[in-house]
Amino acid sequence: MASGADTVLQRLLDGGVDVCFANPGTSEMHFVAALDNTPRMRAVLCLFEGVATGAADGYARIAGHPAATLLHLGPGLANGLANLHNARRAHTPVVNIVGDHATHHVEFDAPLQSDIEALAGWPDGVVFRPESAAQLAPAVDAAIAAAAGPPGRVATVILPADYSWSTAQTPGELVTPTAATGNDARSGAEAALEALRAHGPETVLLLGGAATTEAGLAAAARIAAATGARMLVETFPARLRRGQGIPAVERLGYLAEQAEQQLAGASHLVLVGARAPVAFFAYPGKPSGLVPIGVQTHVMAPDELADLADQLGAGPLALPDIPRPELPEGPLTVANWAQVIGALLPPDAIISDEANTSGMLLPASTAGAPAHDVLTLTGGAIGQGLPVAVGAAVAAPDRPVIALQADGSALYTISALWTMARENLDITVVILNNHAYAILQMELARVGANAGEGSGGEKARSLLNIGNPDIDFVAIAQGFGVPATRATTAEELAAQFSAALAEPGPHLIDAAVPAFM
Amino acid sequence: MASGADTVLQRLLDGGVDVCFANPGTSEMHFVAALDNTPRMRAVLCLFEGVATGAADGYARIAGHPAATLLHLGPGLANGLANLHNARRAHTPVVNIVGDHATHHVEFDAPLQSDIEALAGWPDGVVFRPESAAQLAPAVDAAIAAAAGPPGRVATVILPADYSWSTAQTPGELVTPTAATGNDARSGAEAALEALRAHGPETVLLLGGAATTEAGLAAAARIAAATGARMLVETFPARLRRGQGIPAVERLGYLAEQAEQQLAGASHLVLVGARAPVAFFAYPGKPSGLVPIGVQTHVMAPDELADLADQLGAGPLALPDIPRPELPEGPLTVANWAQVIGALLPPDAIISDEANTSGMLLPASTAGAPAHDVLTLTGGAIGQGLPVAVGAAVAAPDRPVIALQADGSALYTISALWTMARENLDITVVILNNHAYAILQMELARVGANAGEGSGGEKARSLLNIGNPDIDFVAIAQGFGVPATRATTAEELAAQFSAALAEPGPHLIDAAVPAFM
Repeated sequence: MASGADTVLQRLLDGGVDVCFANPGTSEMHFVAALDNTPRMRAVLCLFEGVATGAADGYARIAGHPAATLLHLGPGLANGLANLHNARRAHTPVVNIVGDHATHHVEFDAPLQSDIEALAGWPDGVVFRPESAAQLAPAVDAAIAAAAGPPGRVATVILPADYSWSTAQTPGELVTPTAATGNDARSGAEAALEALRAHGPETVLLLGGAATTEAGLAAAARIAAATGARMLVETFPARLRRGQGIPAVERLGYLAEQAEQQLAGASHLVLVGARAPVAFFAYPGKPSGLVPIGVQTHVMAPDELADLADQLGAGPLALPDIPRPELPEGPLTVANWAQVIGALLPPDAIISDEANTSGMLLPASTAGAPAHDVLTLTGGAIGQGLPVAVGAAVAAPDRPVIALQADGSALYTISALWTMARENLDITVVILNNHAYAILQMELARVGANAGEGSGGEKARSLLNIGNPDIDFVAIAQGFGVPATRATTAEELAAQFSAALAEPGPHLIDAAVPAFM
Repeated sequence: MASGADTVLQRLLDGGVDVCFANPGTSEMHFVAALDNTPRMRAVLCLFEGVATGAADGYARIAGHPAATLLHLGPGLANGLANLHNARRAHTPVVNIVGDHATHHVEFDAPLQSDIEALAGWPDGVVFRPESAAQLAPAVDAAIAAAAGPPGRVATVILPADYSWSTAQTPGELVTPTAATGNDARSGAEAALEALRAHGPETVLLLGGAATTEAGLAAAARIAAATGARMLVETFPARLRRGQGIPAVERLGYLAEQAEQQLAGASHLVLVGARAPVAFFAYPGKPSGLVPIGVQTHVMAPDELADLADQLGAGPLALPDIPRPELPEGPLTVANWAQVIGALLPPDAIISDEANTSGMLLPASTAGAPAHDVLTLTGGAIGQGLPVAVGAAVAAPDRPVIALQADGSALYTISALWTMARENLDITVVILNNHAYAILQMELARVGANAGEGSGGEKARSLLNIGNPDIDFVAIAQGFGVPATRATTAEELAAQFSAALAEPGPHLIDAAVPAFM
């Protein structure tokens, strides 16, 4: 039976829309998978949403009828807005398909959640949010009609992920409520104290915000040592202190499955500067809230941690000696590039971490490195790593800044390289260049699209790899005035990373790290 | 006496904000000029707003206090939104200064007009729109306080251009009403017929929308020949037919002074698919509406033009023979690069025109070229030329697409080159690489900032040139998989342009055209 995504594609075709300029994300994976069932729809991958929307404008000005765009939630639409403004002024018909979280996921305010309607309406746009999968077909029809005008205009269909994966004739699949929403948090360090005293080994401290400083982590570690409680850091902390002399605290996993494992066996969860954990995206049949049912949640302030440790009679901080990795050898892998960073990271560095899937093994590799700060992608809107590195280097001119940057994300804000060059900022950029939206290759399988196949058909796959042609970041960096080299082995990466650190100003290393899967 | 812009800068400094990540436009020129009076404020130029907002996020995560951004109206803020979303999730304090049109210019709905509040509020932002120049100081103070939190958040001050150029103690300068708003348009082809019969030589036909097709232009030209009326095309038509066999109709000037000259002596203005002309931006003491007082305005539909011509007894279309330019020689200039295009443009080409200041002489040079379509920057949100070329090439695979692209604007959506490569689109990109935001260098003088100096001080100038380092588009194009060459003379440009046209697929020419002023 046709899925909602199949229906959307069919109605687009029936309405004369047979080109889609696409920059998809996880919430659009069923749409991407459905492209394989829809040979007449041409999908053109764009590496930034402003390219997709501008291309849709140019297309319609010549073809006389609209193209579609495929955009990823509010942040993806945001990146496409400026060229939709131009389309508005040109009276160009454009039909945006903007993926959204599954309807049951919205209440969890997951990181990418935002007010899509506000953005879609901005360019005098007409917005259609179907209220069931059965409403997808009329919504697409209405959007095409509204776009056509006259005058032509921008029309947007918001496509919740659960409608996309449902059959269009039925409402979205119900999700078994195996987890609470986290909204039943009880307040107070007092309750946390009781929980830690009574159920220490079954208690998890989830640290975020101001609790991820050296002092916060140290107090939490003292509590953990005294009570047997576990510690976790929120998935995407704004600023996390790590390295020698700092308790090495695991981050809550990005994947719900990881997080479930990390929280297994807990009866109490103490939120210290962190929100109750939720899944980044919804998946068919999986819970959105990650707090297991029956777990009692307590909320306390980061600056109460040290007192709490004292009340629990915790001893002074005692840290295990975590060795730095040896310098590895051989062709670059997802593991050994991180070991190079861990082995060579200079003291008091700042890491801007948008390594995404390539960075899975980075925390373990840098736990024994000199103390440093890590800035992560808090809102999930990719294209932040290079700009954040610029800002950090302006704020701290005497500290080395290391940008560990996935290739696909880098391209959203690639001109940040030029600002690094003009301001002569001491930033070492390492591009993890796997020629893929590797995270989406993984997500295509995880969302259950193309049941049984996982990897998708040719057309779906072509939207998830960014090779053909491969992007040469050495050339691009040089174009922006940043010296650059390419590393294909761990030895080359180590030599180039050391040289970049030794010389002031920006450098870029294009590291040929294979995709992790 | 301090201007409003001086006041804003001083209050930022007093509030501890001494770094500004900037991507300014015309409405921010007084702010840019004021930087020269404010040595303690560090201004960091970013080539895309997403870099500016992401850098402000990274800065505050390390510095612990906010940086400012300087953004250009709604479209500039739109481009910065995705990283403001990340800042929101990080609870990072950010203070956006978003320029807006002068308050008296808003009612004219100029091309860059939009709902800035809707965008600024989107990332859970706090928005301050001062209602007089005297409110600038408290607005900045309040924004800094709101940004600081806790929790930290995104706060935006909307800075109307007239408050920026006023002294902060007085309301914005009043503008002498020398032009009507164009809202008094009377309807009907009938009235236009009467006006053309009675006052032909004093009548101007302003053509836009569907009137800029070959048929529309031909009918208008017949009317003009029969009545002595003048014809103009709106400043930024969505799709304009030009070249051999098509009446060569001048476009209304981008600069208000040009438009005033073009409309001088008119007593009747007939709007055919076009809106009543307004200035792109407001300037101190200059009118926003460009319809001279006393001019009667009539509105008619493009498809009524041919009938109107017949009713006026107009003869068949007779066109003067417009010669193509000879191929020029010597180092590239603002004039001769356009002659190369005019001399070599292939039949039925599509030009995506974002040449901006470098393209001033393009219309004259291509009037005698084979018939072609021109797609222009309708909404003024730069970064559209390359994406529009992508869309046009997808829509018309058998037609040559020529993207004439200013350097600064190209960088907003530069990854469009990769889509051209992957899809093997037959696009020839000519980058007019003058290493400057040349239009802003001109606007800095035009807005009357730095009275008497025009060119601004060192700090202002540094925000308007994008050299240091110079950007190498050959390297960048090659990085994205597009073959590229560099031309420094007219002969080189001609040879490279011919070669690019002769070979399928995308090509880029980095043309060293000097800035026009």
